[in-house]
Amino acid sequence: PIYVITPTYARLVQKAELTRLLHTFLLVPALHWILVEDAPHKTSLVSNLLKSSGLSYTHLNMLTAPQRKLQEGEPNWLKPRGVEQRNEGLRWLREDRPSTGGASEQGVVYFADDDNTYSLQLFQEMRSTQKVSVWPVGLVGAMKYESPVVQGGQVVGFHTGWRPSRPFPVDMAGFAVSLRLLLERPEARFHGDAAQGFLESSLLQGLVTVDELEPRADNCTKVLVWHTRTEKPKLKREDVLQAQGQGSDPRVENVFTLARHQDLSWGRCGLMWLCVELTTGQA
Amino acid sequence: PIYVITPTYARLVQKAELTRLLHTFLLVPALHWILVEDAPHKTSLVSNLLKSSGLSYTHLNMLTAPQRKLQEGEPNWLKPRGVEQRNEGLRWLREDRPSTGGASEQGVVYFADDDNTYSLQLFQEMRSTQKVSVWPVGLVGAMKYESPVVQGGQVVGFHTGWRPSRPFPVDMAGFAVSLRLLLERPEARFHGDAAQGFLESSLLQGLVTVDELEPRADNCTKVLVWHTRTEKPKLKREDVLQAQGQGSDPRVENVFTLARHQDLSWGRCGLMWLCVELTTGQA
Ligand SMILES: O=c1ccn([C@@H]2O[C@H](COP(=O)(O)OP(=O)(O)O)[C@@H](O)[C@H]2O)c(=O)[nH]1
Ligand SMILES: O=c1ccn([C@@H]2O[C@H](COP(=O)(O)OP(=O)(O)O)[C@@H](O)[C@H]2O)c(=O)[nH]1
Ligand SMILES: [Mn+2]
Ligand SMILES: [Mn+2]
Repeated sequence: PIYVITPTYARLVQKAELTRLLHTFLLVPALHWILVEDAPHKTSLVSNLLKSSGLSYTHLNMLTAPQRKLQEGEPNWLKPRGVEQRNEGLRWLREDRPSTGGASEQGVVYFADDDNTYSLQLFQEMRSTQKVSVWPVGLVGAMKYESPVVQGGQVVGFHTGWRPSRPFPVDMAGFAVSLRLLLERPEARFHGDAAQGFLESSLLQGLVTVDELEPRADNCTKVLVWHTRTEKPKLKREDVLQAQGQGSDPRVENVFTLARHQDLSWGRCGLMWLCVELTTGQA
Repeated sequence: PIYVITPTYARLVQKAELTRLLHTFLLVPALHWILVEDAPHKTSLVSNLLKSSGLSYTHLNMLTAPQRKLQEGEPNWLKPRGVEQRNEGLRWLREDRPSTGGASEQGVVYFADDDNTYSLQLFQEMRSTQKVSVWPVGLVGAMKYESPVVQGGQVVGFHTGWRPSRPFPVDMAGFAVSLRLLLERPEARFHGDAAQGFLESSLLQGLVTVDELEPRADNCTKVLVWHTRTEKPKLKREDVLQAQGQGSDPRVENVFTLARHQDLSWGRCGLMWLCVELTTGQA
């Protein structure tokens, strides 16, 4: 199967992101989703989503150490995100994955952040990975796309706007690794203290050399995955209403399963807008 | 079927947005996608995506009149977006839809912007729409969610952070209309000159009264759709490289099907980074 390792963390858009990601994965044959929460315990939001998903999955959690965690307001290039979660996914694959003998080791491992956009074709491309396969990633690194440069079927360089001297200047979404190779190199993992942009290299250096990379997506000429990012929602009016005791049901939080309006504290509030009168006769 | 009308326009994230939207729609039974490009002609990007989608679809285009079009730099609340495209979808349903007799008119019409996130459950909820069904929308209007307020199975008000006095203070993603009703009221359509926030009302006022609204999603207590927005990608490094004649293949544009790197003008450039030497021996 294709084992997809996804770090995820609680925020307003989390359920939306995981929902559309799930829809993509549901259309991919033989995919096993390893979803690793950056949280001290597994949340019911993620548990319920996975339980009702119909997908083959493993639910893990691993809290990022406080000193490693990006703080509100810090620029997002300061610290890498999702590192300890991806390593926890690797640990599960090596130690806890139910082994069904030799054939089960013919898997492929892909690191899929929860906010990117993946085509279905991408998963077909990576399925045949022998060691490490690579392809272009759209809308990443302040570029239209970054891509390995292929000549005669071999990767001979990289099209990137930044530090091409990195050992492997590829985004997390731009490669897949064979499970067999990861089991043969039990020390290979992501280094959380890698300098900015060197996180992918910190894993790949323990696995392959550039000339061994297997180009996919028509010799790296097609963009099949996009490093999309979702806007952080502004809650300006929510804040105003909350100050008046009329905010959205606080129990909703990230769960977004509303309690019945009748029970809500703001339901008691005489100021709750009833616009029935206002609209009667206007239709 | 459920007829989903989606306005769309060319931009860097368009193919990514339409790709993940397609994945959701592929999982919904009996859905017909009416995709309306805000463009002077149908683009090959959208044509190819639809052709290879496996979905039942209608591909239309309708260019927004220049004076109605939001200009780069204008705040996005200044002019409504997607209006003429949604009306073109309605026109197609009324005039051009292949009619297969009475049963075919038991459809439901939903207006789905290309950047929102839709759960599968949402489509089950709207399928039984008699006139107009409604439900909460997450992350919209600077609120955690906006929602009709339901008492005794009837909509009696609206939880919103802004102008509750609007006839129908609901987002485009928060309602569906029966096809039969749209055919019975041939004049009902969106008014592009409606004041900010009154676009949905401009259609719904021609169709129903508030007390006729049919609450869904457990009496409007569950959020099944999110008004997500995707960050506009910054191309800072792309611009730098382009100034040096080393930008991404210009033929790629929105199509994101790269020509072979060997042919590219930047391939000729002696400065093209070859990092093979740099990485040899590091693995
Ligand atoms: O504190 C955090 C921040 C991010 N992530 C996850 O790590 C991955 C990369 O994060 P993000 O998409 O924010 O990074 P960027 O798009 O800036 O590369 C995503 O799957 C996030 O859900 C995480 O687990 N904990
Ligand atoms: O010039 C435009 C801008 C937007 N849209 C479409 O109109 C809908 C609403 O636009 P957007 O999502 O930008 O609006 P917002 O999220 O701000 O409500 C989306 O399906 C867009 O693809 C369009 O057809 N032409
Ligand atoms: Mn991301
Ligand atoms: Mn939108």
